[in-house]
Amino acid sequence: MGFQKRTPRIEILFTGSELLEGRPNTHQNYLCLKLKNAGFSVVRATTVPDNKAAIALEVKDWSLRSDALIICGGLGPTFDDLSREAASEALKRPLVYHPEIFKAIKARFSRYRSPIPAENKKQAYVIEGAQVIENPRGSAPGQALEIARKGEIPQSLFLLPGPFAEMSPLFEGAVLPRLRFLYGQNLFSEHLLLHLSGISESAADEKLSPVIDAFNGQARFTILGLLAQVDFYASVEGKSSQEAQRKMRKLKAAILKKVGPFVFGEGEETLESVLGRALLRAKKTLAVAESCTAGGLASRITSVPGSSDYFKGGVVSYSNDVKRDFLGVQSKTLSRFGAVSPECAVEMAEGVRRKMKASLGISITGIAGPGGGSAKKPVGLVYVGLSGFTKKPLTRQLHLIGDRETVRKRAASWALHFSLQELLLGEK
Amino acid sequence: MGFQKRTPRIEILFTGSELLEGRPNTHQNYLCLKLKNAGFSVVRATTVPDNKAAIALEVKDWSLRSDALIICGGLGPTFDDLSREAASEALKRPLVYHPEIFKAIKARFSRYRSPIPAENKKQAYVIEGAQVIENPRGSAPGQALEIARKGEIPQSLFLLPGPFAEMSPLFEGAVLPRLRFLYGQNLFSEHLLLHLSGISESAADEKLSPVIDAFNGQARFTILGLLAQVDFYASVEGKSSQEAQRKMRKLKAAILKKVGPFVFGEGEETLESVLGRALLRAKKTLAVAESCTAGGLASRITSVPGSSDYFKGGVVSYSNDVKRDFLGVQSKTLSRFGAVSPECAVEMAEGVRRKMKASLGISITGIAGPGGGSAKKPVGLVYVGLSGFTKKPLTRQLHLIGDRETVRKRAASWALHFSLQELLLGEK
Repeated sequence: MGFQKRTPRIEILFTGSELLEGRPNTHQNYLCLKLKNAGFSVVRATTVPDNKAAIALEVKDWSLRSDALIICGGLGPTFDDLSREAASEALKRPLVYHPEIFKAIKARFSRYRSPIPAENKKQAYVIEGAQVIENPRGSAPGQALEIARKGEIPQSLFLLPGPFAEMSPLFEGAVLPRLRFLYGQNLFSEHLLLHLSGISESAADEKLSPVIDAFNGQARFTILGLLAQVDFYASVEGKSSQEAQRKMRKLKAAILKKVGPFVFGEGEETLESVLGRALLRAKKTLAVAESCTAGGLASRITSVPGSSDYFKGGVVSYSNDVKRDFLGVQSKTLSRFGAVSPECAVEMAEGVRRKMKASLGISITGIAGPGGGSAKKPVGLVYVGLSGFTKKPLTRQLHLIGDRETVRKRAASWALHFSLQELLLGEK
Repeated sequence: MGFQKRTPRIEILFTGSELLEGRPNTHQNYLCLKLKNAGFSVVRATTVPDNKAAIALEVKDWSLRSDALIICGGLGPTFDDLSREAASEALKRPLVYHPEIFKAIKARFSRYRSPIPAENKKQAYVIEGAQVIENPRGSAPGQALEIARKGEIPQSLFLLPGPFAEMSPLFEGAVLPRLRFLYGQNLFSEHLLLHLSGISESAADEKLSPVIDAFNGQARFTILGLLAQVDFYASVEGKSSQEAQRKMRKLKAAILKKVGPFVFGEGEETLESVLGRALLRAKKTLAVAESCTAGGLASRITSVPGSSDYFKGGVVSYSNDVKRDFLGVQSKTLSRFGAVSPECAVEMAEGVRRKMKASLGISITGIAGPGGGSAKKPVGLVYVGLSGFTKKPLTRQLHLIGDRETVRKRAASWALHFSLQELLLGEK
């Protein structure tokens, strides 16, 4: 269109008092993900109550700083549906009555054989100059307004209904194509999400900072510490798909040079899905014995569809009786070294592997807290046992921090990490 | 303090590019709900990327229009943690280095036996005049700044770390009390959070609607459907503590009259904590056998500190071998009725109870999907077996909807619900 193209600044505004009272905003996840997948980025997402002045202030501020605004909600027929009115006020554009919309609403109500409430008439008002976006699933149509700017691509404002089932088809059918047409033609982007384990967030950051500096201005980065996992996200843009891909190849190589050994997966992959694939490749089956995590490890392993192909089962050995009777842990091991010891971890892993006739066994025994710790064995001390991975069984010691649930989650993640490392070493 | 009291304008700001790329913002639900429960309302919740200018703009705008601002995230040690710097810039208050914070961070790292990365030094900077909020679970302390205003209660700004496990104790321990002190003195409120099980959200809503109508204008209500659980929240306000308590007693009686039999707990209670107390009262021990939930039930039972007093352990019987060898399920039961059958559920529950020498046994066997379903046994079909609760073992059939994880979580919740119901019946 002859205008200079640049990354558009897209904002989203949610209206609804319930969203500020604890109700999850699933619309935000959905819209952000869809926009990201289309190569756009959202620079701001705001939620305000059903209050005309608050909505109008947002629209006004947006019009002074960004390119596109998507408003979700506030198009219904009731007193607290105020998006139309607020946008009209903020942009100083009157609302125009569209008799054909009211006719469609009336037809809709007659289909349900119910009288049309007077309130619904306000749904037939459209901001002057806006296009109507048909909403086959509800009475409130969406609206799309484009505001011309000197020497620039127009600004665009979209009003969408609040219910998800109405909002999403309008977004995908009308909003996203229009955003692509207006702002996206010359922009191609590539995205990379890497998952790391066995490294802390700050250590990963330190290793990656030369790459981040070297690609400064050419790529965007986010680093996120999860429980015993670090996620690193990068994106690049180019004037062609080839250029973006070329940039990403270079960037990815630079990243892997720094943290390659810690990267276990990409995108949707998880430690348990990657471990599952490695088990299938190695034609190995797995059984687990858990004390402090008490099923948390088995539950993660089996969160992968099809895990029954390699996972035999597990024992939650919360009491010493169960460790002896179900896993064959020796009484003298328990009395001499205690249940939280490398010796016990080994016997648990060996026992569950043998008794469940699996090729590999993993065990976890530790002190999750808040009680049960001592000076010699503090809360957070965890042993992981690995049986069948190498000739002799292995143990790993962990000192984990956090509350009971955090220690338990971290312990399961580390056990998955250690197992995967051993399997990958075995492949070399 | 002599200032005119009014409803404070509270805003929340989330920083994090990942929140604008599709990651759910559970912090927002949590904070909004907690603030609502305390009688406050949030007038604005905004998410911006890890971008200093964007964060600074928000802080600046907030300082011109509202009373309190809670910033979540951006206090970590890495390049994209910018909340401290942005707030300092927006408010024109320098950052001051606190050597004692760095000392604490160093001590923390030495506990993990790992060297401290240089990046962590930035976490020791505090906005001039701000109070440090200790963060026992992470390296970044929170910050609380109060800004005096002429003839008005001071404005307050809170910086909180991003990870939920660090943020929530700081919010509840420091932010909420301070907000109450600053803005809440003349308001007395009483809150009630009831947990229901064995009833759907819409059925609970229908039963409660006469109460909601009768107390219209005198109380605020929220109903929230969770996985196999419904939470009902109510709050009332009064000019004195006595008045608020009186109103709440009346309201609570009305609520319990409608849904009393479905209420299993209040406030922080969970199905597993209430079940644990019932087991202790009945002096019973418990063991579990799980197929499709594969440790999810054991993991929930043991999330309660002290659960080793009544929980013996469990078997994750993912394969038929394990069902036979570890639980004593008969081969002919498996061949005749299949692993997903009431017959198998009974043998699993009886087997695990006997073999683990527990007084009670719970089993879960079902089809979590996405694969494995058939016309006769569709995805979502789950049997729960209960052994030792009554003279004869019991089974319950469930038809659960949702994806693999949802079915698994719902199944574990229902198993807890059924067990608790039987224990409570036994008490009568």
